[in-house]
Amino acid sequence: MLDKLKIGIAGLGTVGVGVVKMLEKNSVLIAKRCGREIVVTAVSARSKDKDRGIDISDATWYENATDIANDDNVDLVVELIGGHEGAAYDLCVAALKNGKDFITANKALIARRGYELAQLAEENGVTIAYEAAVAGGIPVIKALKEGAAGNEILQISGILNGTCNYILTAMKETERDFDVILKEAQDLGYAEADPAFDVDGIDAAHKLAILTSIAYATPVNFDKVDVTGITGISLLDIKCAGELGYKIKLLGVCKKTETGIFQAVYPCLIDAAYPLAKTDGVNNAIFIEGDFVGNIVLEGPGAGQGATASAVLSDIIDIAAGRKSYTFNIPASDLTEQKFANANDYEGEYYLRINVLDRPGVLADITDILKNEGVSVESILQKPAKSSEKVDIFGATHKIDEKTMIKAVAKIEKLDNVLNKPTIIRILKS
Amino acid sequence: MLDKLKIGIAGLGTVGVGVVKMLEKNSVLIAKRCGREIVVTAVSARSKDKDRGIDISDATWYENATDIANDDNVDLVVELIGGHEGAAYDLCVAALKNGKDFITANKALIARRGYELAQLAEENGVTIAYEAAVAGGIPVIKALKEGAAGNEILQISGILNGTCNYILTAMKETERDFDVILKEAQDLGYAEADPAFDVDGIDAAHKLAILTSIAYATPVNFDKVDVTGITGISLLDIKCAGELGYKIKLLGVCKKTETGIFQAVYPCLIDAAYPLAKTDGVNNAIFIEGDFVGNIVLEGPGAGQGATASAVLSDIIDIAAGRKSYTFNIPASDLTEQKFANANDYEGEYYLRINVLDRPGVLADITDILKNEGVSVESILQKPAKSSEKVDIFGATHKIDEKTMIKAVAKIEKLDNVLNKPTIIRILKS
Repeated sequence: MLDKLKIGIAGLGTVGVGVVKMLEKNSVLIAKRCGREIVVTAVSARSKDKDRGIDISDATWYENATDIANDDNVDLVVELIGGHEGAAYDLCVAALKNGKDFITANKALIARRGYELAQLAEENGVTIAYEAAVAGGIPVIKALKEGAAGNEILQISGILNGTCNYILTAMKETERDFDVILKEAQDLGYAEADPAFDVDGIDAAHKLAILTSIAYATPVNFDKVDVTGITGISLLDIKCAGELGYKIKLLGVCKKTETGIFQAVYPCLIDAAYPLAKTDGVNNAIFIEGDFVGNIVLEGPGAGQGATASAVLSDIIDIAAGRKSYTFNIPASDLTEQKFANANDYEGEYYLRINVLDRPGVLADITDILKNEGVSVESILQKPAKSSEKVDIFGATHKIDEKTMIKAVAKIEKLDNVLNKPTIIRILKS
Repeated sequence: MLDKLKIGIAGLGTVGVGVVKMLEKNSVLIAKRCGREIVVTAVSARSKDKDRGIDISDATWYENATDIANDDNVDLVVELIGGHEGAAYDLCVAALKNGKDFITANKALIARRGYELAQLAEENGVTIAYEAAVAGGIPVIKALKEGAAGNEILQISGILNGTCNYILTAMKETERDFDVILKEAQDLGYAEADPAFDVDGIDAAHKLAILTSIAYATPVNFDKVDVTGITGISLLDIKCAGELGYKIKLLGVCKKTETGIFQAVYPCLIDAAYPLAKTDGVNNAIFIEGDFVGNIVLEGPGAGQGATASAVLSDIIDIAAGRKSYTFNIPASDLTEQKFANANDYEGEYYLRINVLDRPGVLADITDILKNEGVSVESILQKPAKSSEKVDIFGATHKIDEKTMIKAVAKIEKLDNVLNKPTIIRILKS
């Protein structure tokens, strides 16, 4: 058997404690599977005295996380602090410079500093691994980098945020409003006290940026993710979408297009045949289309102590067993800046809902504008609004480019009997 | 960059040709992802002159596949011949003995000879990889061995045969009989001319035996898979199951039980909440439950040129990049014979259907027997049979051990108005 692998863990929150528990409970099978023992030789966290229900008495305690990277008794640094600057970043840089492999669950760090860190890892001949950073317990980084390694990736589409998927699912199933469900999700621990990071799509965007870089060999570029969250999705739109045969999901999507790499997080309507349509509740799911493999879908828990710890362990065991890969699947020096498509350089079907005063001729006015602007309508329905004077006209279009759609909607908005800015949401078909 | 990896391919059928095409089309990205070029230096197949639409003019042609293993210009042998004896087996042994890594898509070879071959690989310090042998393009071997490496596996359940899943799905959706759908599947290329291997569950059993060995560290043991195929599943049972809220699927299931490892392929009823309930048509899907990760599900194409070639490429690229693992996840010398549970050492809910003459008292006679034998009924329904004199009584039981269920059914069969041997099918709940 090889020498023990000595790991230092920075951060003993939910995930850090999960990792230690997993190493304790499954130590025998883990040692067999990677051919060596794994021992925690150093730890760092905020409070030394807190009872976490784990035994870390044999590990050296550091007040300052970065010191773990300077401990000669540590081969591998596991960062579970979070954030893309400060302690997590400093620790990563120190670990790589000291020739230590680095594992993290930190999506912000990889999405915002990943390119620079990948270069640094390469210069120092060490490995960065981050399975836990995308979709929690689902081994999607491994599936994409290694499982689909022979494929050109045609597209990736993912339900990457469990909080948003829970909220959208619960709104649909219980017919209650966003605010009510959000509060419930917070009480259940599915949403943070400050939910902005999740519901505004930032968390999903971090994950998507990482997947895009792996798939398209481009430096990871979080700033180029076009992000729309779910705060604008009303129960009414969920109901109307349902009547048209669709669910609304927050998806992260990347694919190569003629105008560049499309990389966006946005709520959209998907029909029952779409590969991710069946994933409800807090689960995450990722749909990968490769030129040879076709469509594969991976579904599972995107968060939680056990699931995230499992992903961290997968990385630890890989490194213990000598299984390594480039940070973004090819050498960092080969990653090349590519053009990203403008968010509006998009063509597809659209869901449209217009709140109007119920007057003769209003539907005709709307359909005239759509016709004149070249927007072909697949279906159009009408639903009484709460006030008896008002109705919602909603429907789905055929394929059209987004700029045309926006132009048509701007004209509709100016009609006398149209009461608000019309809602448009993309429809995604497989 | 490292030296080129030189591979020899034995078998240029659908999959072999797919592998060569993939290496041709995606050569640039593959070389970047594994850090070296991959070249086909040797091939062997039945007919040298057949036009396969690929260029193999630079590779040495061998009439005898085993000669590939003796070619010094081959680092890695890819076996795509099939079968667990003869050419495929001989080639594998020769490759391992000559210190060459060995990749195969051959589930029969691994399920029936895998333990012996794993030992031989270990003695010779080389690697056997077989991602393509289980569930085609779905990277399930990788997900189980590496992605879930830190977990104790609590259970695996899989739709492992696309032909059977297609047939069962089509029977339900189109309400046509097994024979009609089988013929259609053969015409579509989803089923072989001799369908026994698929519909009798043998193919799924090969795959399950491999998964069991990885999950439970036991020598792979195909003979200990309890196998029931789908030929006994009637359209009537599919309809009755549907009325009770279930689908019928052919599943391969392994888990640890008090009486040993349960390892069986069988048709069963699953409800909409079961993780594999959503997988219809020719797709495969695998549900893995780990003690930390919880439930993950992987779904995708279980067969076909591109999907299978993609899995073979995943193994080739892993070996090219130096990523290796033990054949069955731990050293072959550590695999230990374990007790397998008897197929009847099973406890669960059951579907029951009894074809009877519609006479007063027949239902009471049946429910009396069930009650006296301790079988608690969850629901019981009645359906007119084709002849007006006959009805089908069907329903679901609460949890009961299989021996009791079989005993009760044997008594029911002897009742005067019961016309055939009653049908019982297990119900699987998540």
